[in-house]
Amino acid sequence: MRGYPIVISSPSGGGKTTLVHRILADMPKAAYSVSICTRPPRTGERNGRDYFFVSKPAFERMVRKHELAEWANVHGYLYGTPKKFLDAKISLGYFPILDIDVQGAIQLKKKYPDGVYIFLIPPTLRELSRRLRERHTDSAEEIKKRLMAAKREISMAQQYDYVVLNDDIDAAVERVKTILEAERWRAHRAESRLKALR
Amino acid sequence: MRGYPIVISSPSGGGKTTLVHRILADMPKAAYSVSICTRPPRTGERNGRDYFFVSKPAFERMVRKHELAEWANVHGYLYGTPKKFLDAKISLGYFPILDIDVQGAIQLKKKYPDGVYIFLIPPTLRELSRRLRERHTDSAEEIKKRLMAAKREISMAQQYDYVVLNDDIDAAVERVKTILEAERWRAHRAESRLKALR
Repeated sequence: MRGYPIVISSPSGGGKTTLVHRILADMPKAAYSVSICTRPPRTGERNGRDYFFVSKPAFERMVRKHELAEWANVHGYLYGTPKKFLDAKISLGYFPILDIDVQGAIQLKKKYPDGVYIFLIPPTLRELSRRLRERHTDSAEEIKKRLMAAKREISMAQQYDYVVLNDDIDAAVERVKTILEAERWRAHRAESRLKALR
Repeated sequence: MRGYPIVISSPSGGGKTTLVHRILADMPKAAYSVSICTRPPRTGERNGRDYFFVSKPAFERMVRKHELAEWANVHGYLYGTPKKFLDAKISLGYFPILDIDVQGAIQLKKKYPDGVYIFLIPPTLRELSRRLRERHTDSAEEIKKRLMAAKREISMAQQYDYVVLNDDIDAAVERVKTILEAERWRAHRAESRLKALR
């Protein structure tokens, strides 16, 4: 049985990274899809684990050679998903988990319509702003920019399959696990089971 | 918040009745939608609880006056869902549970596309035949007819949103509950939550 991609997006500060780690820990057939990107690594980030850090010319070469399943320009840097890893995992029955932005998710949905596309939302914009300030990683100017971007991203959330409230990380993890469990029974995945009944 | 219809279909012997009762018992906002029908009551069936038993002319009058949300001819008798009950429950935030056949479900999906449409399948046709024989209610001829009908119905299962395996009634109940839980987070139901984030 083939797998399918599971896409988790959220505005920055939306809790996506924590949630993705929790899902990966609990789902044996999930596999994190490591994006490539042109921004320099942040402290603590490791090449091949968090991202594959590549040069802009190298990234552009992959775009030209159609080696990316999706790619996007986010705050001036390029991010993308190598198609090779994705297709290999899917055909082996694994579920690649992609932590990608809205533009990338919308591209991917056209190519992988049987995937599961989940957008995480904060309870309020005020709460999102509080979470961003608490990280102590961004300047006031940077936070303002991220909040603007969040509004733009949230306005596209209905192009996803699910919009999940992250008011509490444990509850949000449970909601996503419930969704992934339910998705196994979608009619378009029942082909072989129905064939056996003919 | 408005509710939406939850439709459960299965071939006869598929376990739909038991499952519907279990869901009703566990879901406080679920409300059984009692169908009308022109067949005579069976032993133990009560008017207004299992069905509203009506004459053929009365049924046909309701069809003409557009009082039915769906209707179908099943084995020579007419069955239908009164629109009034359905719409009243939905607008009060309840979730009508409809135990209807494939023809009716397909009609309903056009009018209530935001509903949840679930088709229960047996693990094998042999198992379905065993369940029908065990009920001791039908003749061999009748069972043969029901198996033929089952094959026809199963061939339309992919028009539902979900196809759920009923190999074990407890497992099937859990699957349906998981689906209903996940459905709360579908993007098309997130309108008001997203509006609050603008």
